[in-house]
Amino acid sequence: MYKIGIDLGGTNIAVGLVDDDYKLVLKKSRPTNAHRTPEEIAADMSALCIEVCEAAGISIKDIEKIGIASPGVVDPKTGVAVHADTLPFNRFPLADHIRRGTGVQNIALENDANCAALGEAVAGAAKGKSSGIMITLGTGVGGGVIIDGKVYAGFNHAGAELGHMVIEKGGVRCSCGREGCWEAYSSATALIRMTKEKIEECRASGRDTIMFKAEKVSGRTACDAMRQGDAPAREVYEKYISYLATGITNMLNIFQPEVLYLGGGVSNEGQSLIDDLSPLVYKEVYGGREIELPELKIAQLGNDAGIIGAAAL
Amino acid sequence: MYKIGIDLGGTNIAVGLVDDDYKLVLKKSRPTNAHRTPEEIAADMSALCIEVCEAAGISIKDIEKIGIASPGVVDPKTGVAVHADTLPFNRFPLADHIRRGTGVQNIALENDANCAALGEAVAGAAKGKSSGIMITLGTGVGGGVIIDGKVYAGFNHAGAELGHMVIEKGGVRCSCGREGCWEAYSSATALIRMTKEKIEECRASGRDTIMFKAEKVSGRTACDAMRQGDAPAREVYEKYISYLATGITNMLNIFQPEVLYLGGGVSNEGQSLIDDLSPLVYKEVYGGREIELPELKIAQLGNDAGIIGAAAL
Repeated sequence: MYKIGIDLGGTNIAVGLVDDDYKLVLKKSRPTNAHRTPEEIAADMSALCIEVCEAAGISIKDIEKIGIASPGVVDPKTGVAVHADTLPFNRFPLADHIRRGTGVQNIALENDANCAALGEAVAGAAKGKSSGIMITLGTGVGGGVIIDGKVYAGFNHAGAELGHMVIEKGGVRCSCGREGCWEAYSSATALIRMTKEKIEECRASGRDTIMFKAEKVSGRTACDAMRQGDAPAREVYEKYISYLATGITNMLNIFQPEVLYLGGGVSNEGQSLIDDLSPLVYKEVYGGREIELPELKIAQLGNDAGIIGAAAL
Repeated sequence: MYKIGIDLGGTNIAVGLVDDDYKLVLKKSRPTNAHRTPEEIAADMSALCIEVCEAAGISIKDIEKIGIASPGVVDPKTGVAVHADTLPFNRFPLADHIRRGTGVQNIALENDANCAALGEAVAGAAKGKSSGIMITLGTGVGGGVIIDGKVYAGFNHAGAELGHMVIEKGGVRCSCGREGCWEAYSSATALIRMTKEKIEECRASGRDTIMFKAEKVSGRTACDAMRQGDAPAREVYEKYISYLATGITNMLNIFQPEVLYLGGGVSNEGQSLIDDLSPLVYKEVYGGREIELPELKIAQLGNDAGIIGAAAL
C-alpha cells in the first residue's frame, strides 16, 4: 500500500506518494502562502494529497497513512502543531484537520528535522543502520536522532536541539539566547559571518583575496575561493571546519551512532567536506583506536528526506 | 527471586543481594587487590557471591541473575571486559569466569557509570521515569543515559561519554586529549584546580581568604569557605557552577530526559547545589517557557547505585 508524506515549509507545501520500500513515487508542491489561516493551509495540504493520488491513478482511500513534517514544536501524541516561527500555528490540531480533509484515519505528525533524519534512516545515508544522527547545516544547525529506527526527542519531544549545545562558553551570541552554541559557529549563517569578517580583515590590512570579487557573500564564497588557491578563504574554511569537527566529535562521544550524516546547504560541498572533517574528528573521538567508530557521510535524499521520513513515521 | 549485583572497582569488590523490588538486602565487600591476575580477581568475585548467599541463608542456586558493573570499556554482548585503567583487564572474558565460578548461567556485564545510572532509574532518583541522565561529578565527569528504562551507549557501546563534550573550544586540556571538555571544568578535580588557582591568585595579590587555612585543598574547600562568607571562595564556586550549568543545559537541549540526576563527590553538596544550578539551567534551556522541563535532582543511592543497577541489567 501507499503512504503519503507531507513536508510543510514556510515557503512550500510538498506532498509525495511513497511506496512500501520508501521510494518516492510522485511529488507535487504548491506555495504555502503562510500569511493565511492555519485552516486554509491545512485545507490546501489535504487537497494536495488528493491531487497526488489522482495523478498516480489511485484513490485517497488506498492510502494507508499520512505523515506530516512540520517546522517548530509539535506534539506527536496529539497531532497538534504547537508553535512555528514561519507558520501561523499556535496549538493548532493539524492532524485532525488532515484527517477530516482526506478521510485518512492514520495521521502522524513530527518535527521536520526529525523527519529528515528518519527519511535518511529508512531510505538514505543511514539505511539499514540501527542508529543515526543527522546534522543539518543551514540557516541554523538542526539535529535529528534516530535510535533503534525511531525518532528520539525526549520526554517532552523538545530534545535533539543539537545545534544549541554550547561549544565555546561565552562565545558568539546564538539566536536562542545562549552564548557559544554550535549553531553560532557551524550554520551556513555562521560561515557567511566568518567569510565577511575575513573580507573586512583583508580590506583593513591591505591583504588581497579573491573574495573581494563576491557580489553577495554566501556559504559558498569561501569554499569556491579556496579551491582557486585563495589563502584567506582557506583560513575561513579551516576555522569553520574546526568548529564543525568539535561539535561532531561531541556528538560521537555522546551518541556513538552507527552513522552521522550531514544535510543542509553546506553539505553540498560533498565528499570533500567529509574528507576534511574526518581526520579532525577521528583524532579526538573518545576511545579512538580501540573501537569500531561511527561513519561520517553526506545525506543522500536532499529535499525529499522530509517527505520520505514523514511517510515512515 | 534474588539477583546479585557486583560493583567491581579498582579498590574494592562489592557484592549485593537484590530483591525483585530492587532493594539491596545484603552487601559484602573485599579489597580488589588490583595487582593480581584477572583470573584471581574473578575467582574472588565468584567466592563473594557465594558468601553473600550463605550469609542471607539462601543457596547460589536460588540466584536468577548476576550483573557486573565494571570500570572502563566492556562488551555487554560477549561479556568481555575490554579495557580498564584501574584493573588488569585486556579483553578478559569476565562473564564466562563468573558463570563457571558460581554456576549461575545468566550473567550480564555493563560499564559501572551506566550501571549507576540504571540503578537510580530502577530504585532511586529516576524511579518510575521513562528517561534519565546521570552525571557523576568525581575524579572525572561520568555519564549514563537511560532511555525507555534501558542503558543507551551507542552501536559500539562506547557512547555516553558525556564528560568528553567540549564546552570551551581551545580550553583546558582534558585527560582524553581534547581541549575544553566538560570534565576539565566540572569534575571534582577541576573544582580543586580552580580552588588552588584562586588561592594562588589571593596570595599573589595580597587578598585574604579563609581558604589559606586549608591543609589540603579538596572539592569541599571552596564550598565550606563560601558558607562562612568568604568572597574568593564564592567566586570559585560561582565559576564552577556556571560551567556545570552550561554542560547540564547542553544535556537537556540534546536529550530532554524526564530527570537529570547528579552523583559523585560534588553531589554531596546536596539540594543547595540543585537550587544554585536551576536558575542558570532553566534560563538557558531551549524552548524554555513553552514546555514541561526535565527535573534536576541529586542521586539517591550513593555507592549502592552500581550494585543495584548491575542487578537490574
